[in-house]
Amino acid sequence: MKLETARGVRDFPPEEKILRQNIIEIIRNVFERYGYNPLETPLIERLETLSAKFAAGESSDVAKEIFRFRDQGKRELGLRFELTLSFARFIGMNPQLKMPFKRYEIGRVFRDGPIKLGRYREFWQCDVDVVGSEDMLADAEILAIVSDVFKELNLDIEIEINNRKILNGILEFAEVPKSKSEQTIIIIDKLKKIGKDEVNKELKKLKLKNGSIKKILSMINIKGSNNEILNSLKKKLDNKTSKEGLDEMSLLLSYLKEFNVKATFLPSLARGLAYYTGPVYEVYLKNSKITSSVVGGGRWDDMIGNFLGKGKYPATGLSFGLEPITEALKLKNKELKKSVVQAYIIPIRTREECIKIAQELRESKIKTDMPLSERGLSKCLDYANSFGIPYVLIFGEEELKKNKVKLKDMKTGKEKLVEV
Amino acid sequence: MKLETARGVRDFPPEEKILRQNIIEIIRNVFERYGYNPLETPLIERLETLSAKFAAGESSDVAKEIFRFRDQGKRELGLRFELTLSFARFIGMNPQLKMPFKRYEIGRVFRDGPIKLGRYREFWQCDVDVVGSEDMLADAEILAIVSDVFKELNLDIEIEINNRKILNGILEFAEVPKSKSEQTIIIIDKLKKIGKDEVNKELKKLKLKNGSIKKILSMINIKGSNNEILNSLKKKLDNKTSKEGLDEMSLLLSYLKEFNVKATFLPSLARGLAYYTGPVYEVYLKNSKITSSVVGGGRWDDMIGNFLGKGKYPATGLSFGLEPITEALKLKNKELKKSVVQAYIIPIRTREECIKIAQELRESKIKTDMPLSERGLSKCLDYANSFGIPYVLIFGEEELKKNKVKLKDMKTGKEKLVEV
Repeated sequence: MKLETARGVRDFPPEEKILRQNIIEIIRNVFERYGYNPLETPLIERLETLSAKFAAGESSDVAKEIFRFRDQGKRELGLRFELTLSFARFIGMNPQLKMPFKRYEIGRVFRDGPIKLGRYREFWQCDVDVVGSEDMLADAEILAIVSDVFKELNLDIEIEINNRKILNGILEFAEVPKSKSEQTIIIIDKLKKIGKDEVNKELKKLKLKNGSIKKILSMINIKGSNNEILNSLKKKLDNKTSKEGLDEMSLLLSYLKEFNVKATFLPSLARGLAYYTGPVYEVYLKNSKITSSVVGGGRWDDMIGNFLGKGKYPATGLSFGLEPITEALKLKNKELKKSVVQAYIIPIRTREECIKIAQELRESKIKTDMPLSERGLSKCLDYANSFGIPYVLIFGEEELKKNKVKLKDMKTGKEKLVEV
Repeated sequence: MKLETARGVRDFPPEEKILRQNIIEIIRNVFERYGYNPLETPLIERLETLSAKFAAGESSDVAKEIFRFRDQGKRELGLRFELTLSFARFIGMNPQLKMPFKRYEIGRVFRDGPIKLGRYREFWQCDVDVVGSEDMLADAEILAIVSDVFKELNLDIEIEINNRKILNGILEFAEVPKSKSEQTIIIIDKLKKIGKDEVNKELKKLKLKNGSIKKILSMINIKGSNNEILNSLKKKLDNKTSKEGLDEMSLLLSYLKEFNVKATFLPSLARGLAYYTGPVYEVYLKNSKITSSVVGGGRWDDMIGNFLGKGKYPATGLSFGLEPITEALKLKNKELKKSVVQAYIIPIRTREECIKIAQELRESKIKTDMPLSERGLSKCLDYANSFGIPYVLIFGEEELKKNKVKLKDMKTGKEKLVEV
């Protein structure tokens, strides 16, 4: 039989899993520090639930990528492809929840898509969302989380923000027909990547009027500080939608100042998914070879209500991509930690005593290991070395007599006798 | 559309997930303290891999319970139903690994089985195993982990141990034909549950000779201390298999003493799964309504080699069941923690200042929350109260003037003014 993993999924050996676990720990701690509580939803959902979203506007590409199956009772099921949908279902099933409801969920999602470099069929997402608040303070808090997480990860980031209402207002101002608005937004979204001329070309291909294209380009391409862009748009746009969007942006920017979070207002930013209704955010790394976004999100006020067919559930949040963050840290910290072990005890005909020493260290929360069978000193040192264990304790008959143990710092090679 | 989860899977709202996360944290920390490193294997495996085990002796019941599906490339896949199999595949695919290889994995597994009380289709297992050591010290260490975990969880346990070689030796001694040995072991395994008379009846139904039954019952039903049982069996059994088993048991018991771990030698214990080769362990709670086992495991020296078709990979380990442990703690600590939040700040027309206070607390790692919109004091206190948040900080204009904040202990109701 062939020894291999399924296509597009991976094993994470200790050196990778230790890193991933550390990242998750940092993210989780920041989430909790901001008052977000953990929620766990199942990996298996009814296919009906997973398919519901597309009615709400999602492109059908994701629907094609659901792993589908049936249980023994022939019920149609699927593996979740994101965490938001199950969260929406949970909110709908629990009307007793106190609002605002702040939750995070960290877990795996699945997509049966084509496999390219850096795309997997099983991967982790770390989502944080708050339901039940329309206030821009919620959006600012969410971005403060992003800022804190990357400070702790020691990675430089650029947070880009925009507001879908501003984008919709620009389209209204430029008189883009409703039938072409989705495609127009997708083209505008590419501005940063493909540049003004290419956007111009694509909008022409979409057969927008020249006047419309000119108006759009003049709006999304404004240079300057956040406030300069804001003021410039305020002067040019006066429809209700844009005004709402610009007011929200203005408020969000002032809250971000209070949280001491830096963000760049990018009027072309849309984020592909159709369910965003207000602020949208996208985060990139600075000074890294990882060019894909590491965090994405925004306000999604309508989705839960649409999903349930009733009620108003304003919501905002975002998702950290564990995969690009891990890759970035791997590029940065060339050497991965290979083991959690802090102390390795080597018994030389003193196994019994060494078990006792090991147990004492473990009681003091020190991660301790020792050989499980009699092995020579040099073999043991090799083993400790190959795992990068920082300290080795050697306990031979001589040390036993003195009731001391030889402590070896594996980095410096220095040894000293210490009390047991 | 119907708002429901798939059959047999669950949402864990914050109060449940906080508890589950705490349990996992404790288990994980003890695993690492004993030098075990984390490994992550995928939830999706090739169906061929998942089916391989049954060739190695597993009853086919589990095979029927695999969730099966195909990817877009028509490859046959399934969801893992335990963690050991993927671990065996990982070992096989990574011949460069240094032995002994000590790993743990904590994650979800899936079984498309009938749903009874306490049985789910998606549940968590916490596995710890070491590959590459035949030494009974490895088995003792694994049981020391069990002992430490339940000490930290504050749950009383009874660890039952036996050795499959002793059981096989008893069968040999009682001249049970090979064709009936598996069924005989399954019946013997039930002794504790159904009693001597029922075991007698079932062995008769299996048409074992009267002499055989008498011999078996006299062996598996010995009462006394571990050493009394051991000595008594040593006197009666003299075939090679039993001798090996009894020697291993004797060594294991002496190591357990060094680790200060209490265990009960139960000669009838087999554990259903067929792949165990030496010591087997099963752990039950004392003084709890949870009667199912909370931990199970044993030595499985042959499985990886069988799976790979070559090589010797002695291995031992066990699996903690997150579900019964959670249930036991829920029964014990009647009130669940509803939120991770430690401090809730209530601004009274002082929102801007409160954001600063919140950020300072968060920098000091205190889990802090505050309302996201202007709300009255009593409404805010209700909110904090409903989540069981221990401390509330009230910051009104008066406090602002004094540069102090009112700290309210929500348990005692006491208030005092403290420096910002």
